[in-house]
Amino acid sequence: MTETNNLASNPQTSSRRELRELVRSQLKALLEQSDFKGAKAILVPVQPADIAEAIEGLPEAMQALAFRLLSKDEAIEVYEYLDSTIQQALLEEFKRQEVLDIVENMSPDDRARLFDELPAKIVRRLRAELSPTEWQVTALLMGYETGKAGRLMTPEYISIKQTYTVSETLERIRTLAPESEIIYYLYVTDNARRLTGIVSLRDLVISRPEQTAAEIMTTDVVSVHTDTNQEEVARIIQRYDFLAVPVVDSEQRLVGVITVDDVIDILEVETTKDIYALGGVQSEGDNYFQTNLLTVARRRVVWLFVLLVTNTVTGTIINSQKDILQQVVVLAAFIPLLTGTGGNVGAQSSTVVIRGLNTDQIRLLGPALVIWREAKAGALLGVILGTMATVWAYLLQGNLPVAIAVGSSLVAIAILASVAGSSLPFLFRSLGLDPALMSAPFITTAVDVLGVLIYFTIARVILGI
Amino acid sequence: MTETNNLASNPQTSSRRELRELVRSQLKALLEQSDFKGAKAILVPVQPADIAEAIEGLPEAMQALAFRLLSKDEAIEVYEYLDSTIQQALLEEFKRQEVLDIVENMSPDDRARLFDELPAKIVRRLRAELSPTEWQVTALLMGYETGKAGRLMTPEYISIKQTYTVSETLERIRTLAPESEIIYYLYVTDNARRLTGIVSLRDLVISRPEQTAAEIMTTDVVSVHTDTNQEEVARIIQRYDFLAVPVVDSEQRLVGVITVDDVIDILEVETTKDIYALGGVQSEGDNYFQTNLLTVARRRVVWLFVLLVTNTVTGTIINSQKDILQQVVVLAAFIPLLTGTGGNVGAQSSTVVIRGLNTDQIRLLGPALVIWREAKAGALLGVILGTMATVWAYLLQGNLPVAIAVGSSLVAIAILASVAGSSLPFLFRSLGLDPALMSAPFITTAVDVLGVLIYFTIARVILGI
Repeated sequence: MTETNNLASNPQTSSRRELRELVRSQLKALLEQSDFKGAKAILVPVQPADIAEAIEGLPEAMQALAFRLLSKDEAIEVYEYLDSTIQQALLEEFKRQEVLDIVENMSPDDRARLFDELPAKIVRRLRAELSPTEWQVTALLMGYETGKAGRLMTPEYISIKQTYTVSETLERIRTLAPESEIIYYLYVTDNARRLTGIVSLRDLVISRPEQTAAEIMTTDVVSVHTDTNQEEVARIIQRYDFLAVPVVDSEQRLVGVITVDDVIDILEVETTKDIYALGGVQSEGDNYFQTNLLTVARRRVVWLFVLLVTNTVTGTIINSQKDILQQVVVLAAFIPLLTGTGGNVGAQSSTVVIRGLNTDQIRLLGPALVIWREAKAGALLGVILGTMATVWAYLLQGNLPVAIAVGSSLVAIAILASVAGSSLPFLFRSLGLDPALMSAPFITTAVDVLGVLIYFTIARVILGI
Repeated sequence: MTETNNLASNPQTSSRRELRELVRSQLKALLEQSDFKGAKAILVPVQPADIAEAIEGLPEAMQALAFRLLSKDEAIEVYEYLDSTIQQALLEEFKRQEVLDIVENMSPDDRARLFDELPAKIVRRLRAELSPTEWQVTALLMGYETGKAGRLMTPEYISIKQTYTVSETLERIRTLAPESEIIYYLYVTDNARRLTGIVSLRDLVISRPEQTAAEIMTTDVVSVHTDTNQEEVARIIQRYDFLAVPVVDSEQRLVGVITVDDVIDILEVETTKDIYALGGVQSEGDNYFQTNLLTVARRRVVWLFVLLVTNTVTGTIINSQKDILQQVVVLAAFIPLLTGTGGNVGAQSSTVVIRGLNTDQIRLLGPALVIWREAKAGALLGVILGTMATVWAYLLQGNLPVAIAVGSSLVAIAILASVAGSSLPFLFRSLGLDPALMSAPFITTAVDVLGVLIYFTIARVILGI
């Protein structure tokens, strides 16, 4: 025991990943030997997030057992870090009282998220048991749309009045800190609960005890509305380097606060959505690797189907050119090269534009300049690749007219692809659609269909068919 | 003036974006009229990040002018938010003393980043003028590799000893707060400067004045090393919901702290790199839209060139099948459909696996399970799409053997593509290469070349050629 305890309490001596792995295997070994006292002891100095991960790594039958070893306070903290499928499984294992203890003590925003995922039957049962205040707060948060500031905010902040002195405020923090999620900012409100200023704990500790909130508060308050999009909230916190941002309703009354740790999670979910969309996979903010195969297929088949149709159209066009293909079969060999390169140039342009739109990087440039820049880049890339393709095609086939047709088509296709790739994201955004989701199918369609037409037209002209 | 002033000081009444646009146009109008007093007045209640953006939006000639309107303290804050190209341009405009005031007052981590971007000549000049302590701190940070914790950390934290009481610590915070970047955590060190515990400002304000740091500190300290990768640092802060993480050297001595606002920026840069890599664009962490066209072309042409070669190989294979193509020209029409769909299925699999590797989502599953899952998903998708493709091909061409060859090839190609798409990222990671950067070319090559071979083999068998 001494050795393991030692390792667990000196996490600096090994990497955190090894530590978590160690805790998991210690826990498993001790539980298998039914040494519950030992299992309890090794968990004492471990961070809640690490305990949660150790529990997640245990066989299912042991998870509830391990969870029961924790003290009530610890259990609540650990529970919030667990994956939602394990949260649900645990809820089903527990007695009514245990469940209530946990759910009642979760922070309201986390509770609202949990209720979202639970079967309606369980939510109804829990709802009946929650204290009226707790339910009210949860219901309030659940009333807001998913993905909006109202849903993410916690009502557990500390508000003060302009007339409070520094020492009064510190006293208030002492009283309220245990049940507040954020104490690093104090929110100053007037009698109508309207937000008028913010005092940071930093301002507070460096001010004299008798100064009032009115004297030390910042009045240029940056706030969001309950219906502000979560992505926008994340951008604001990121932009101003805040630890939290206050949420106000339509009458400027303070109703909650969103903290920076939630923002990091939002950014990750939004990024995953964007990356999936660019890769042609629909995402609903959950974990892809925990959904079943049919859901996986459903989320991927739509995009594949669109491309299948596109390709059929391309195929039809190729087929309609049977006459020229039968005369110069070698033309067919370069179709994948042309549509492939065109698709890739288009994907590059749309990737940088979509990412630029999401990170505000292209704010200062505007659509016209960006598209013009991409058109020039496309021309440059087209000339480089077209030259290489011409040489290559000639060396390969020894047919100069075909080689020239391939090279010059590539220049035209590269320009077409970069213009389509950079302009369509702007178009979709101005129509209120998600550029990441919409751009790829349309770009591929445009580039494939038009690209093949360009190729055959140029080939006919050059070959005189 | 009253109306504009009113708008600027009540930011809640309009969205922040409109506000920033307004400030920029007000500023421009006032500067054009040489109304410097007015310009100064409208900036007073505006957040530094917003002032920086307003300045960035001005014509170049006005930027230095607008910047000079700010008070010294404001100027320093605003400067840190400016884009690095504008930071450099401003430095060249300023007199020696102005530059020194700004640079000397920047936080050391931001200064190290600025020096990184400046021409060596300017850095040498500034270096000579900085106070010895300031230079020492900057040089220390610049000694660490870019992208490592050592480079990101700020040495401006507050450390305390175990024996300090709560009231002594609060007194120390009061003295040191003005020059500390983070005061929400106090770091407890022993006589050898080794990190032994952390006290949060929250713990501090809720404890009794006579309690000692030893009594209230957390001893399970999560720290990173100076050579920890920035992505890892970001993951740790995200995982534990920290506001900052301490950085220690190889002897466990505390050398700095990394704050959550830096982490959000890291995550954004890393995400952009990943998204660009998936889209086939090389990224070096700078702003794509501010690099010149040649750099843009260079970063995109490598990937396009690889695909050109791949496509040439595919083309050669198609060409080697001239005999069958000349007999059944219609076969050529389905090549784009097959390679296109294969490429898309492969891209989907690699997208989810690469994102999963970067977010630790697939930690609990392991490579074998993930690849097996993808193979099944590929088979399922292949059967759905293959059936559709068969029907379609038959309706379009009325040639049943060709239709069956297309459909059955699609099943094989979908399985091949998902296995390649899911296994290659694991392979590249185990070789120490970036999966996002390496996967796409290899997957495309494998799917295109093998896909076409599969198609012709199946077609030959079915058609008996």
